Amino acid sequence: MRTYEIAVIPGDGIGTEVMPEALNVLERVAEVCDFGIKFRNYDWNCETWLRTGQMMPKDGIDQLSQSDSILLGAVGFPSVPDHISLWGLLIPIRREFHQYVNLRPVRLLPGIPCPLANKKPGDIDFWIVRENCEGEYSQIGGVFGEGTPSEGAMQTAVFTRYGTDRILRYAFDYARKLGRLHVTSATKSNGLFHSMPYWDSRFEAIGKEYPDVRMDQYHIDILAARFVMSPERFDVVVGSNLFGDILSDLGPGITGTIAVAPSANINPERAYPSMFEPVHGSAPDIAGRFIANPVGQIWAAAMMLEHLGEPEAAGLVMQAIEKTLENPAAPRTPDMGGTAGTRELGAAIVQNI
Amino acid sequence: MRTYEIAVIPGDGIGTEVMPEALNVLERVAEVCDFGIKFRNYDWNCETWLRTGQMMPKDGIDQLSQSDSILLGAVGFPSVPDHISLWGLLIPIRREFHQYVNLRPVRLLPGIPCPLANKKPGDIDFWIVRENCEGEYSQIGGVFGEGTPSEGAMQTAVFTRYGTDRILRYAFDYARKLGRLHVTSATKSNGLFHSMPYWDSRFEAIGKEYPDVRMDQYHIDILAARFVMSPERFDVVVGSNLFGDILSDLGPGITGTIAVAPSANINPERAYPSMFEPVHGSAPDIAGRFIANPVGQIWAAAMMLEHLGEPEAAGLVMQAIEKTLENPAAPRTPDMGGTAGTRELGAAIVQNI
Ligand SMILES: CC(C)[C@H](C(=O)O)[C@@H](O)C(=O)O
Ligand SMILES: CC(C)[C@H](C(=O)O)[C@@H](O)C(=O)O
Repeated sequence: MRTYEIAVIPGDGIGTEVMPEALNVLERVAEVCDFGIKFRNYDWNCETWLRTGQMMPKDGIDQLSQSDSILLGAVGFPSVPDHISLWGLLIPIRREFHQYVNLRPVRLLPGIPCPLANKKPGDIDFWIVRENCEGEYSQIGGVFGEGTPSEGAMQTAVFTRYGTDRILRYAFDYARKLGRLHVTSATKSNGLFHSMPYWDSRFEAIGKEYPDVRMDQYHIDILAARFVMSPERFDVVVGSNLFGDILSDLGPGITGTIAVAPSANINPERAYPSMFEPVHGSAPDIAGRFIANPVGQIWAAAMMLEHLGEPEAAGLVMQAIEKTLENPAAPRTPDMGGTAGTRELGAAIVQNI
Repeated sequence: MRTYEIAVIPGDGIGTEVMPEALNVLERVAEVCDFGIKFRNYDWNCETWLRTGQMMPKDGIDQLSQSDSILLGAVGFPSVPDHISLWGLLIPIRREFHQYVNLRPVRLLPGIPCPLANKKPGDIDFWIVRENCEGEYSQIGGVFGEGTPSEGAMQTAVFTRYGTDRILRYAFDYARKLGRLHVTSATKSNGLFHSMPYWDSRFEAIGKEYPDVRMDQYHIDILAARFVMSPERFDVVVGSNLFGDILSDLGPGITGTIAVAPSANINPERAYPSMFEPVHGSAPDIAGRFIANPVGQIWAAAMMLEHLGEPEAAGLVMQAIEKTLENPAAPRTPDMGGTAGTRELGAAIVQNI
């Protein structure tokens, strides 16, 4: 029997509350589809940092590399500065494992109230392909003139051709795979004088390899506005690390699915494990009450199954999610206007598999 | 009689079509309020660049400095790369005249269909204060290794304490002026390792000078989503050049007013002229047909009157805009679902003064 070993990092806050529901779902679907699944639990989080000064052990990356995939909850807690906690765990995993694609669906689901007027399931359905290893997220820079009137900070973004071309190719390939031959690029070449004109020139160059794919591009400011005004027009949207980050929270924002949307950090060559997580963060404001919506974590697990080569299992999980959400009698967490807890909603989804 | 000299730069595309309507409005309201207004026309645009290689003459800034204020249409045209046209005209004006504040209203107006569900005029009403002279918009950087496999581009953002503190103070002061004691800061300190932690530390430091003002901050990704999910919660939102840019297109996006919203580039010390423009661009797709909505340009003129010290005139213009928009029988341009042209809508607003 084929068996997958999954590294499980619940992390902080509601990460630890939603994770058990995803593991229940995975165990159930493994039974139904007849494959084995083993979890290795890693309790690395902000508490680890407060205790040891590190978010994960020195050989953390080595440990994770033994697994087929990584399922992550959420990282970050108020007592630890965000740039410490994230750059100590989430970002090193993305980079050391060359997970240079961050893939996120933007999809209006049944049973989830949409903040946009006059939209119904099916109207909004596209994908964001985000560069996940370089660009604006860099440690190049620092504070200068500290404590003097000429104090300031610098931050340098780096776009390599290597890193830019591979994410653009992934986006075009993904459009072909979906059979939706249209890629939109996020730019800001009118303001960011060097990086974005370069990005645009690579988009144009790589696009020539895909003459069957329609291309367009928008500056990030108007693109964000168009997500709200005309979300129907998108198929695959490709953006840099920062622009992809913004668009892939805004996307779930327009579909009412911030608590529900998943995020896949993929190494397409499969030389390293990929990592799957919900889009939402650790949500300290509601942590400890077991009222967080587990659907984002469960949907992330479904994307993991797809990546592992278990499309049937992935499909069963997605069907169970949709069936649960569209049933008005099913438990609903407070973010969906209900009063149910994390565990009730999780259990309902398990039952629907 | 007090008289204002206004430098008028219609620019490109629909900029040249909406500008005459704003000038008509200004002439009319000057008559009603009994002050003088003189226009100096500057035909600087992308055609100038194609002809001369420069967007404006060498002494362009000197010429403009003779005026009390600048009214700009829109800059940019497809045959000229955006980063050339903008860095040759719009951005130098902002910088040479120390217009370090970009102030933009986000307001749901009567008669404009809102893309968000269940919102009515009054529900969305806040201000964006954007840093307008430094930050991510920089010319520091370039392409390296051109033509080799290790090719790439770098782009450095610079945040000085001088530039950061003054925009933050403006935001806090503006909150006090409005009597809405709440400032929200846009950050991304979890991803942008140096610049945004620095921004956050200055926000905290300057906030201490304003103990009466409530402060909160969100990462730009979730902040963009919250503009869609809960726009009621904002009063004054302050952001860097790039984040402010994105949020101040998204804001008009959620209120359906992309074609209608204005943008004020302000030098608060009044040592230099300030500049007023619509948020929309030159819109090459509809240029030449005189169907563009002139309200953004006219509202920009109203913000200019306010800045010049003519609040009564500014109020009359705003009332005329609102009266026109809420009248179902008034002319409506195609972006508002009508069939009227730029001139008809402009004339209707003039009549309502
Ligand atoms: C045209 C462009 C350079 C400009 C900017 O990004 O500042 C525009 O988007 C704006 O917001 O005024
Ligand atoms: C937590 C943060 C560093 C992260 C990011 O910006 O990449 C998050 O927002 C995400 O999108 O996964």
